[in-house]
Amino acid sequence: MAANKTAVRQVLDKTKAEGRTALTAPEGKLVCEAYGIPVPKEGVATSAADAAKLAAGMGFPVVLKIVSPEILHKTEAGGVLVGIRSAEEAQKGYDTIVANAKRYNAKATILGVQVQQMLAGGQEVIVGAVTDPSFGKLVAFGLGGVLVEVLKDITFRLAPASKDDALSMLDGIAAAPILKGVRGADPVDRSALSAIIQNVSQLISDFPEISEMDLNPVFATPKGATAADVRIVCDWNPEPARYRPSHQDIVRDMNRIMKPGAVAVIGASSEDGKIGNSVMKNLINGGYQGEIYPINPSAAEIMGRKSYKSVKDVPGEIDVAVFAIPAKFVAQALVEVGEKKIPGAVLIPSGFSETGNVAGQKEIQEIGHKYGVRLMGPNIYGFYYTWKNLCATFCTAYDIKGGAALSSQSGGIGMAIIGFSRSAKMGVSAIVGLGNKSDIDEDDLLTFFEQDDNTKIVAQHFEDLKDGRAFAEVARRVSKKKPVVVLKAGRTARGARAAASHTAALAGNDKIYDDVLRQSGVIRAMGLRDLLEYARAIPVLATPKGENVVIITGAGGSGVLLSDACVDNGLTLMPMPPDLDAAFRKFIPPFGAAGNPVDITGGQPPKTYQETVRLGLSDERIHALILGYWHTIITPPMVFAKAMVEVVDEMRAKGIHKPIVASLAGDVEVEEASEYLFDHGIPAYPYTTETPVAVLAAKYKWARGAGLI
Amino acid sequence: MAANKTAVRQVLDKTKAEGRTALTAPEGKLVCEAYGIPVPKEGVATSAADAAKLAAGMGFPVVLKIVSPEILHKTEAGGVLVGIRSAEEAQKGYDTIVANAKRYNAKATILGVQVQQMLAGGQEVIVGAVTDPSFGKLVAFGLGGVLVEVLKDITFRLAPASKDDALSMLDGIAAAPILKGVRGADPVDRSALSAIIQNVSQLISDFPEISEMDLNPVFATPKGATAADVRIVCDWNPEPARYRPSHQDIVRDMNRIMKPGAVAVIGASSEDGKIGNSVMKNLINGGYQGEIYPINPSAAEIMGRKSYKSVKDVPGEIDVAVFAIPAKFVAQALVEVGEKKIPGAVLIPSGFSETGNVAGQKEIQEIGHKYGVRLMGPNIYGFYYTWKNLCATFCTAYDIKGGAALSSQSGGIGMAIIGFSRSAKMGVSAIVGLGNKSDIDEDDLLTFFEQDDNTKIVAQHFEDLKDGRAFAEVARRVSKKKPVVVLKAGRTARGARAAASHTAALAGNDKIYDDVLRQSGVIRAMGLRDLLEYARAIPVLATPKGENVVIITGAGGSGVLLSDACVDNGLTLMPMPPDLDAAFRKFIPPFGAAGNPVDITGGQPPKTYQETVRLGLSDERIHALILGYWHTIITPPMVFAKAMVEVVDEMRAKGIHKPIVASLAGDVEVEEASEYLFDHGIPAYPYTTETPVAVLAAKYKWARGAGLI
Repeated sequence: MAANKTAVRQVLDKTKAEGRTALTAPEGKLVCEAYGIPVPKEGVATSAADAAKLAAGMGFPVVLKIVSPEILHKTEAGGVLVGIRSAEEAQKGYDTIVANAKRYNAKATILGVQVQQMLAGGQEVIVGAVTDPSFGKLVAFGLGGVLVEVLKDITFRLAPASKDDALSMLDGIAAAPILKGVRGADPVDRSALSAIIQNVSQLISDFPEISEMDLNPVFATPKGATAADVRIVCDWNPEPARYRPSHQDIVRDMNRIMKPGAVAVIGASSEDGKIGNSVMKNLINGGYQGEIYPINPSAAEIMGRKSYKSVKDVPGEIDVAVFAIPAKFVAQALVEVGEKKIPGAVLIPSGFSETGNVAGQKEIQEIGHKYGVRLMGPNIYGFYYTWKNLCATFCTAYDIKGGAALSSQSGGIGMAIIGFSRSAKMGVSAIVGLGNKSDIDEDDLLTFFEQDDNTKIVAQHFEDLKDGRAFAEVARRVSKKKPVVVLKAGRTARGARAAASHTAALAGNDKIYDDVLRQSGVIRAMGLRDLLEYARAIPVLATPKGENVVIITGAGGSGVLLSDACVDNGLTLMPMPPDLDAAFRKFIPPFGAAGNPVDITGGQPPKTYQETVRLGLSDERIHALILGYWHTIITPPMVFAKAMVEVVDEMRAKGIHKPIVASLAGDVEVEEASEYLFDHGIPAYPYTTETPVAVLAAKYKWARGAGLI
Repeated sequence: MAANKTAVRQVLDKTKAEGRTALTAPEGKLVCEAYGIPVPKEGVATSAADAAKLAAGMGFPVVLKIVSPEILHKTEAGGVLVGIRSAEEAQKGYDTIVANAKRYNAKATILGVQVQQMLAGGQEVIVGAVTDPSFGKLVAFGLGGVLVEVLKDITFRLAPASKDDALSMLDGIAAAPILKGVRGADPVDRSALSAIIQNVSQLISDFPEISEMDLNPVFATPKGATAADVRIVCDWNPEPARYRPSHQDIVRDMNRIMKPGAVAVIGASSEDGKIGNSVMKNLINGGYQGEIYPINPSAAEIMGRKSYKSVKDVPGEIDVAVFAIPAKFVAQALVEVGEKKIPGAVLIPSGFSETGNVAGQKEIQEIGHKYGVRLMGPNIYGFYYTWKNLCATFCTAYDIKGGAALSSQSGGIGMAIIGFSRSAKMGVSAIVGLGNKSDIDEDDLLTFFEQDDNTKIVAQHFEDLKDGRAFAEVARRVSKKKPVVVLKAGRTARGARAAASHTAALAGNDKIYDDVLRQSGVIRAMGLRDLLEYARAIPVLATPKGENVVIITGAGGSGVLLSDACVDNGLTLMPMPPDLDAAFRKFIPPFGAAGNPVDITGGQPPKTYQETVRLGLSDERIHALILGYWHTIITPPMVFAKAMVEVVDEMRAKGIHKPIVASLAGDVEVEEASEYLFDHGIPAYPYTTETPVAVLAAKYKWARGAGLI
C-alpha cells in the first residue's frame, strides 16, 4: 500500500490551524482513504433536501450523523440515526439530528449531517491506536460491543506492526474463535482485517501528532472489512524522542563497567560498618584480580592498598568507580570521574529522587551526560559479576558462577535474589541493582548480556520502564539468542486514566505490558518466586525440538496433577501413537495406564523408571519428559535420582539432549534427591507438581518466541 | 410461588406416553407457567390464516416457529421467522416455515406453527439446568449470545438454589457488570431474574426426570424477565439416589475407626520388609497406647504380642482392622471382621478396581454393606491420627501433633503430604489415604473431622467425588465451623460431552466443580503446593474481623509486589485514613511513602518495624497485616523476627488477635527467621511475595464463606 502522506499532512495542518485537536468525521475518512483503510460511501449534507438527495444516490439504508467539532460523543448528543430507509426519512432525520445537537450543546458549530452508507452484517470489531508514555505508539484490536468493553478483551502491539504482528492480534483476544466462525458462520477476512491494523499502525508511526485513534466499529465480513466510524485525536506537542547512546557505545562502556580491569572505590574506608568498608572487603575477599583503588581524602592506605585523594590522582586507567559517599558529595566526585574519563559510576548512595531530591538526581544525570559517564543507580546495592569474582556491592559476597544474569529495580528484591541464589546454589553470571535508573537501565543491561558469553539467561525485575520501546526493541533481538525473563511489578497499581477514545479507555496499563513483552519474545514471570525458579532452571534445560511432551510417572495421582499443570501452562501432551504405547507397555505392569501420562504404577523397581525414561528419550517423536516419582522402599529417592542421571548421561553420550524435569512425592529424602537431580541437569522439585511443569513451559515459551520450534 | 405440580406431571406423562424425551415448545411453556416462569403470549396456528389471526390478536411484531417433535434445532431447519409486522407477513411466513421444515426433514411430524409475541429490547440471558453424574441437578446462568458461548461465561449452583444462591449467580459471571447497566443503560430486574433461576432449580428438583433444560434467551429488562424460548429434555430412567448411612452412624463408626481403643492387624508379620511388619512397627513405635492384636494364622507371637488366627479369636472388642494381606484373601477376612462386629476395615492391599478387578471390589463392598463394616480403601497407605499416636500405615511414622487433617485419593500425593509436613514441621491431626474409595470417602471424613476437636482445618486431595452432592452438602455445613480446603485434580482432563442443550454444552466439568465448591464454602487450592501451604498456615492465622488489609514494608519493591498479590488474591488494601497516615508517619522517615503500603524505607532499626506494626495491630480499622522485611545490617533477620514476635505477643496479651503474615527478602538467614516467625504464629516465607498473601487470602475466603466477615 502506498500511503498518501501529503493528504494526511493537509488534513492535520488544517486541523491544527483551526485550533482543534479532534478531526471531524469527514477528515477522519480522508485520512483513512489516504492509508488504504476502507470506509463506507458518504457525504455531508448541509440541508434536509441535500440529505435526501445524497442518501438516494448511495442507496438505502443509510446512517445520519451530526458533524460538529464540539460534539465527540455523537450518540449521547442524539446525533445519530440509523436504518434510514427512504428519502423522506432522510429529510426528517436531518432536522431531528440538528435539533438534538443544538439542545445538547447550544454553542456547538454544526457543519452539517453526514450521510453514510449503512453497513449491514459482519462482525463488529474495533481497531485503534494510543500513545503510551513508555512504549510510544501502539495499535489495538478487539471485538466491538458493550460486552467486550466490560470484559476488556483487547490486545496491543507496538506500532508499526508487521503482518505477523497484525495476524497474531486476531488470535490474541479471548473471543478469537468468533472471528474464525462459530455456529456455522463464515470466518471473517483475516487478510483485510490485518491490513487495516497494519495501516493504522503505519499511520500513527508516520504522524506522531496523532495521539489516539478509534475505528469503531469496523465491520468485518468474509469478504473484506470496512471502518464505519473514525475518531482521530491529535496532540500538537508530542514528547520528544528520548536520547539513546549508540549500540556500539553501550556495548563498549558496559563491557568496561561490568568486566573492569580496575575499580576505584570512592569513599573507601577502613572502618567496620561503613559502606565504603563493606565494598572494599567484598572486592578483596571476593577474589577480584584487577586493580582496586581506594579513594579517600583523609587516608594514605586502606586495607593494605594505597589510597588516593581523588580518582584524578590515580596513575592508571580506571574502568568503573563505585560510590560509597553521602549523596551531597556525589556530584563533585562525579565530575572528577568524568575528568578522569572513567566510563561508569556505580552510585550506591541514596538521597536522590526516591527521597524527593529530584534536582540532585538531575544534576548528576547532566554531569554524566556531559562527561560520557554511564550511571548505575543511584540508590542501589551495587552489582556482582561472578566470572571476574567481582562483588562491587556492600551486601554479602556471592561466588557461584553460572549462566543466570539477574537485575532488580529494588534493593529488597536484590537481597531476595541473593538469598534464593545462595540457598538454591544457583549459578549466576551477574546480579545488578538498578535503583533510580538515572541512566543505565534494563535495555543497557540486556545489550551487555546479549554479547556476554558467560550469560545464558537474563532475568529482570522492574516496576516501570522509562523507555519501554527501547526495552522492547532490544528484548526482541536478544530473546532470539537468550531467554529473557521479566517480573513486572506494579501490575495492578495503576488506576484508570481519563481518555478521549475507547481504545485508550480499554488500555489497562498492564495489558499493554503483557502484550508488548510477549511481542518481544520475553517470558513473563507473574511473581518473584517464578522469576527466580525460571532463572535457575531454564539454563539447565535443553531446548526442546518440538511440542510433544510425555509424562512418565510412578504415582498415578501425580500424573493427573502434572497433566493439569501442562494444560494450565500451555504444554501439549503428545497423543500416544499405538506402537509407542505398546513399546512402553512392555516395561510396565498390565494394569499400568495406557497413553500419556505413562503410569508405570507404584512400587516399581528402578529398572522400570530407567527403561521407560530411556524409551522416552530415545524416541524421536517425544520432545520433552516430565517425571513423577513416588517414594517407595523398592525405589528410594536417591536410588531413583541416580538411576535417572545414569539414563540421561547415557543418552547425552549418544548426543540426545531433551529437556526433562521431575516432581518428587515422598518423605523428606526427596529433598536431597531433588538437589542431586538438579545438579545433574534435571530440574527437580519436592512436594509440587506445578513448579517442574512451569519451568519447562517457560523454556518452551522462549523456544517458541525465538522461532526454534 | 405455589407451583402447579399437577400440570407439570400431566405434561411429562403425556410426553413419556408418546415415547418422546423432548417437550414441544407449547409443552415447555405450560411447564414454565406452572412454575411461575414468565413466557411470552403465544398460540399454535395450524393454517396460514390461523397464524395471521393469532398474530393480530396479540399485537405485532411476532415470531413464527415451527412446532415439530423431531425438529429440535429450529433455526437450522429454517423454522424460525422473526420481526413479522403484519397479518399478511404472518400468513406468508406460515407457508415458508412449513415448506422449509419439510425440506429439512421430510419425515418430521409438523404440528403447526407457533405464533409468539416478540420481545423487544432487554438483555439476553440464558437460564438452564443439567444433571451431573456426581452433583445431580444443577441450575445454570449466563449471558446469551454467541460471544458468551465462546467465552464459556456461565455459572452453576446445586438445585434447588436459595434466593442468595440465585443472586450470587448474577454476580458470578465475568460479564456481570452488563446486568448492572453500562454506558448509561438501566440495570436489569435482579429480583425477576433470580426468581426464574430459583423456579427452574425447584422444577428440576421436583421432577428428577427432567435431565436438561434451556431458557434461551431470557429477555431481562429493568422491569421483569421473560423466557422467550424453552427447551426441556427428559431422561425416563434417571439414576437412583445413592445409599448414604445416617449422620449419626457415620459419626459413631468414624470415631471408633479414627480413634480406636483396639486395633487388629490382619497379616501382621515379624518379617522385615513385609507390609504387615511395617504396620506393626509403626503402631508400636509410634506410641499407640490402645490394644494391638496381630492376626496371623501361622504365628503364636509377633513383636512380643500374642497373635491370633482370626479376629474372631480375639477376646476383647476391636474398633478397626488394618488389612496387610494380598487382595485374594481380603474377602474372607472381611467376613470375619464383620462377624466380629468391627466397625471399620483399613484396606491397604491393592489389586482391586485399579488393576481391573472390579468384581473383587464389588464383592468386598457387598460384604462391608452386609455386615455394617465401613471400608477405607482399598489400595491405600492407611492413615495417621496423631493425637492417639496412631500410625495405621506401612509408611514412615509421623508424630507432630497439630490441627491440620489431610487426606488424599492417591498414595503418591499422600507421600508428598507426609514429606512436606515433616519438612515444614506442620502440626497434623490426621493423614488419611482414600484410594479406590469403595466406601469411606471425603464426606465421611469431613463428618468425622467436623466434630473432632483436635482438627482445626481439613485439606483434601481428590480426583473425583463419587457423590459430589453429598460432599457439597456436608462441606457447606462443616465449612461454617472449620476451613475446608480442596485440591481437585483432573481439572482439565475431561473432554467435551455430547449434549442436547446449550447449557450442557457449556458445562465444562471443572466449572461445575469450581462453582459448587465455592457455593459450599470450600477454599479451592489450584495446585498441590497451595493445598499444603494453606493447610499449614490457615490454622496458625487469627480470623480477620473485616476486609481492611495493610502492608507494612521495609522494602518498597516488596510493597509493590505484595500489593499486586493482594489484588490478584481478592484482598482489599485499606485506603489509609488521614489521621492514621499521620500516625504512621511519626515513626518513619519523611520520605517514607504515604498510604498503603506503609513504606518505612530500608535501613530502619527494629524499633521502626515494631512501632508501625504495633500501631497496625492496635488500630481497630485495620483487620490484617502483611509485613515486608528487607535484610539489612541494621535489622538482621533474626532481630526482625524476634522484634515482631515481641510486638505480636504484647498485643495478644491485650486480647488483640489479627492475622499477620510476612515476606522476607534477604540472604539465607531469612530462612531461619521465617521458621521462627511461623513457629510463633506469624506465617512467614523467604524469597516470595506471593505465598504469604495467598495464605492470608485463603483465610479470608474461608471467613467470608463462613459468614464471619
